Parts: sequence; structure tokens; C-alpha cells
Amino acid sequence: MRVDLGGGFIRTDLPMNDGRTIRYYDAAPIARTALDLRPQEEPAGIGEMRLDPLLNEWIAVAAHRQNRAFLPPKELCPLCPTTGDLLTEIPDSQFNVVVFDNKNPSFDSPKGEWTLPELEGTQTPITQGAGRCEVVVFTDRHEGTFGSLSRENMALVMTAWRDRTREISAIPNIVQVFPFENRGEEVGVTIHHPHGQIYAYPYLTPRTEKMLQVATEHLLRTGRILMDDVVARELRDQVRVVSQNQHWVAYVPFAARYPFEIHVAPRASVADLPELSQDQVDAFPEIAHEVLTRLDRLFDVPMPYMAAWHQAPVKIGREVLRLHWQITPIRRAPGKLKYLAGSESAMGAFIMDMKPEQTAEQLKAVRI
Amino acid sequence: MRVDLGGGFIRTDLPMNDGRTIRYYDAAPIARTALDLRPQEEPAGIGEMRLDPLLNEWIAVAAHRQNRAFLPPKELCPLCPTTGDLLTEIPDSQFNVVVFDNKNPSFDSPKGEWTLPELEGTQTPITQGAGRCEVVVFTDRHEGTFGSLSRENMALVMTAWRDRTREISAIPNIVQVFPFENRGEEVGVTIHHPHGQIYAYPYLTPRTEKMLQVATEHLLRTGRILMDDVVARELRDQVRVVSQNQHWVAYVPFAARYPFEIHVAPRASVADLPELSQDQVDAFPEIAHEVLTRLDRLFDVPMPYMAAWHQAPVKIGREVLRLHWQITPIRRAPGKLKYLAGSESAMGAFIMDMKPEQTAEQLKAVRI
Repeated sequence: MRVDLGGGFIRTDLPMNDGRTIRYYDAAPIARTALDLRPQEEPAGIGEMRLDPLLNEWIAVAAHRQNRAFLPPKELCPLCPTTGDLLTEIPDSQFNVVVFDNKNPSFDSPKGEWTLPELEGTQTPITQGAGRCEVVVFTDRHEGTFGSLSRENMALVMTAWRDRTREISAIPNIVQVFPFENRGEEVGVTIHHPHGQIYAYPYLTPRTEKMLQVATEHLLRTGRILMDDVVARELRDQVRVVSQNQHWVAYVPFAARYPFEIHVAPRASVADLPELSQDQVDAFPEIAHEVLTRLDRLFDVPMPYMAAWHQAPVKIGREVLRLHWQITPIRRAPGKLKYLAGSESAMGAFIMDMKPEQTAEQLKAVRI
Repeated sequence: MRVDLGGGFIRTDLPMNDGRTIRYYDAAPIARTALDLRPQEEPAGIGEMRLDPLLNEWIAVAAHRQNRAFLPPKELCPLCPTTGDLLTEIPDSQFNVVVFDNKNPSFDSPKGEWTLPELEGTQTPITQGAGRCEVVVFTDRHEGTFGSLSRENMALVMTAWRDRTREISAIPNIVQVFPFENRGEEVGVTIHHPHGQIYAYPYLTPRTEKMLQVATEHLLRTGRILMDDVVARELRDQVRVVSQNQHWVAYVPFAARYPFEIHVAPRASVADLPELSQDQVDAFPEIAHEVLTRLDRLFDVPMPYMAAWHQAPVKIGREVLRLHWQITPIRRAPGKLKYLAGSESAMGAFIMDMKPEQTAEQLKAVRI
């Protein structure tokens, strides 16, 4: 199936050997017909969701994921294109950006009718991990990173993120769509090929639930969108701004949790990726490239990070929650990682070893 | 100053070179008179607290901590007793358990009057990191771990935890007292000598705030204490129980966040460490020793973990929150750590690779 996404972008959907779907994103019409020649396989089982009654938080239990690919050598990379005898997840021998259903998903389409159980403490029933997990492969080249992609390639990834958010948002039971990237073995990356993931949850995640509550209280108290106030403060103070252009601003947040944490937000108020204007989309690759390059050159060693797209949930909170890209690098100094130890892990109480103004200064001083 | 703690336990307080206090805990009267002979030093500065307005969470900014001791060799260990030319944090040449004020605290006694600012989004003022940070040294022997202490030594550590909780709880502005231990370089431990820490916060930590909210709703809905229901389920199901005795039960929680997470809870309903009965106190070392030994022998390599005492806060929530000891090991398989990646870190949404029943089974199968 071929879908015209506008702006010259095209998506081609093809089936995989176990019933999953792969989606090729291209900036020009390319015939995508390569078949998945691997032996037919049974789809993976669906995991379960259990309630932690002490916190009213859902935990996804995905025991079938324990044996997923773990740091395969380059010649066995499942995210490289299919060439010669190596039959990978991507049947074509060349691609630009692809998105396919995760082979070992934490959340998947439910079998049969599904609704989120009522929360009743220790009486809450176990349920299926209903949702979606997709893999976004940024390029067919095994080496590199999101920050080293060409601007055109980054724009195509952005197209894929927006398309997937739009389409997944329409699936019943989906509450929140979360595109993210883990980069580096230090954050647990098990495959080096440049890629990200999309998790679509059937519940409001704990972080977003809290953000929604706080932003709603702020709106009631002040009449203003909280994120607008945050962006306004950073633009006014300037001292924590790492980079800015006409449509985006990148800053170390006033109360960062990690030494070199950076948020990249639209200057205007935007709920989610599909709501971005074409001008905003076009201005993103440049600032993304700059910020990630600064992080990599800070200690002259690739910076391990998590890059997370916070967007408004699908059905609620769209009037108060706003899009931003949160980059959490976990190196605090050459040879030293920032660990979540007792206070952070058990109590959620963060201790920062550096002032955000000081780390913004260091990031700005990097020669790029 | 010497304080009789009952049960034969004695505490002796002495001043340190920079005005801090060191407290020796002994199970029998021992003259503690050793002076801190290091040159007089200025006390460290107080850090600040900033509000993350998106989550209404306080972040402690302790820039003076960046240069703290980092994996010193054994012969320079600051937690060993003072012998010969090595003048350490502990002036005496022998000790059992000591607790002293942290040299580089994230929270410290405020200078002048102090109250927690009102939360007003981006308008919330920066304030001092008012609170306390203390170091608990478990033994004067450099090698070993909490789990390898003698039962008598563990009982003395428990005496120190209870005494410190009682005394710190009486300090104005303290909302919550949190004794914990980080074990292993994999969780960021910077000094190997067996020790733990106590953080006393001037605000309710995010985790405890959420637990209080959930437990309060549960009480209103059911008339029952939530933690009592949790312990009752584990005792009834048995399948996740790793060990139990007359007064304590150790279990992998029904919705664990980490593969080998273990909670150790009193079977009776107890708010905090000082409220434990003598019988409960006496029964703790045996189960603590067993649980930590199982973790260490699971993969035959010392298990990196965080061990956290959740207790009811000081002024509120004492009618609904209950004591338990949460052990969070971060190794999920030989050579594999459990990482907090995008979903856990950015969204607080945990994915578990193993069923809690399965990990409890593995823990029970360890020969000890």
C-alpha cells in the first residue's frame, strides 16, 4: 500500500514474515516491492500489565523480550538492509527511513475486546499489554547516529514520527504516543544501527499524568499554558539557552535533573508532532544537528543519551500539554556517568552536581 | 556527649574539624575520646533547591559535590578508622558503627529562618537546600558488605538507623527521613567501604507524595491500610515470597520494576523504624542476611543494588504509610544490567523482562 503524505513524501507499507508491517518512508516515489523471504514465523505473544498498587502505576511484563538481540556484530545487524545471504528485518537492499512493528513488543494489539481495568488496589486484575511498539530505523547505513544524519534524512525521520503519531493516535485504547531514541551502550542500547522507537501506551504514563495535573492547576490559577511560561522564561533569561532559531529554542532547563540535559521546544505553543507547521518542521534538523553535535564534542566521546518526544496525550490534556524534545545525556564528566542512586531511584528526588547555567555555558563553548 | 539508647546500646557524640558531628554507636560502654586532628576547615556551602515547574518537583543543586572522593584506593579510604598517618573521617582507631554529617551534603541546616516556598510555577523562588545528609559507616573493616556483617553488627546498624530517624524527625522543616545504601560501582558508588547514607528532606519526595495519595484514597475507599493489603496478598499467594520469619516477610513484589527487586516488610503494620518493637528489631538481621546472600549468590558475583527504607513521613501520612525495605538490584542476568531507558526514564513507565514469580523462584533456588 502506498500513501501520499504530502510535501513529496511517500509511505509504502508491506507485510513481514510473521504478519507484522514494515513502512518505507521516501522523499520521492520509489518502487518498494521486496518480499520478506525469511521462513514464516508465529507472531510473538502479548505481554501483560500489572498494577503496582502502592503507586497506582502499570508495569508492563514482557517476559518474551528477555532473549532479544543483544549487541549483534555488524555483519548480523537486523536493522541493516537485506543483502546477499543476510535476511534482516528490512527486505529491501536500500532504504531511507523505515518503521516496522517491534518483533518483541512490550505492548501489542490486544486479542479480543480490551478496556483498561479499574484501579482497585491489590484487587486490580492483570490485563494484556495492549498498545503498540514500533522501531524507527533512521538510515540504511550501519554507522552514525541521529545527529550525524543529513538534514534531508532528519526531515524524513521527522515525517515518519509525525505520520506514525497521527496514525497510531487513531487506534482505540491508545492514550499516548511516545517517539524516543536511546543512544549508547551506557543507556542499554542493544543494537548500534541508528534507530529509535515508538511506544504507544494504553494508559497515561506516570510522568505525563503528573505533568497534566500540574499544567491543569497552572491554567486554572493563571489562565496560562505552563509550557509557554517555561519557554518565555528561558528566552528571557537567555543564560541557559544553548541554541535558538526562528522556530525552536534549545536550553538546559532551569531545574535540570541531569548535568547536560537539554530541552528543545517550539517557540510557539504546539500540542504534538502532527500539529507542527511546515516552517517549524523545516527549522528542526538544523537545531537538532547542532545540539547533538555539541553533546558529542563536549568530552570528545559520543555522548550516551535518551531523547524523548513529550507530546500531549491523544484524548485528554491537549489544551494544556505541549510538545518538547527532552535530551537526557548521562555523562557528567569525562569517565563519569550520572547514576540514579538511592535518592533518585527510590524517592524520585534528584540531586544535581552542577548548576544549569554552568553546563549551558560549557555546551555553548564547544567549537562546532 | 554520651546518650544511653536502651538495650545496652550507647551513642557518643564528638565534634569534627569543621564543626560537623560524629556519632559512635556501641553495644557496650567504650570510652570514645579520639580528637579529629586534621587541620580546621571551613564547612561546605549549602546547595540550593529549584522547582521543576513542569512536575512541581524540587531539584537539589549541590555544585560543591562535584569534587567529592571518587573511588579512592584502600589506603586512602576516608571511612576507615584513623591509623598512623592516615587521618580519616573517623578519628578513633577502632569503631563499630558511626554516623557523621556528610562532608558534601546535598541538604544541610539552613542559614537563618527557612520555610518551603509556595509553588508558583516559573515564579517559584530558589531556596536553600535545607535538610540533613549523614553517612552511616557499617563497620571499621574496609572489606565486606552490609549482608556480610555479623548479626550483632547488623543490629547495631539498625539501632543507628532508628536513633537517627527519631532524632532527625524532631528537627523543624524535616518532612521525611530516608536511610539507604547504594552498593556497587554499577550504581555509582564512589567509596567501597561498607556504608549507607541518610537523607532528610525538607519536602515530601515525589515517590512518597504519590504513595501517600494512593494510600489515602485506598483508606477512604476500603477502610484499610494499603500496605497491609499488599503484605496479606504476598503471604496468601506465597509464590513470590523469598523468605519469611515470625516478624518479617521478603518478597518479589507482584508488579516489580526490576527483575530481582525484593521488598522486606514487617508482617505487622509499622509506620517507621523507631516504631519497630524489640522483637521485630531482633528478627531483622537474619532475614536481611539471607536475602542479600541470595542476591550475591544468584549469579555468583556481588549484586549491585540500592536498598531503601521507605517509612511514613514525619508530620503527615503516618496513619496510612508503612515501613518497608526496598532492595533494587540492577543486574538482570550474568553480564547484563537493567537500564532505565526511554520509557522508564522519560515517562516513568516501567517494562519488566521477567515475571516476578519466575525471579522469586530463581532466588529461592539459590543454595545458601
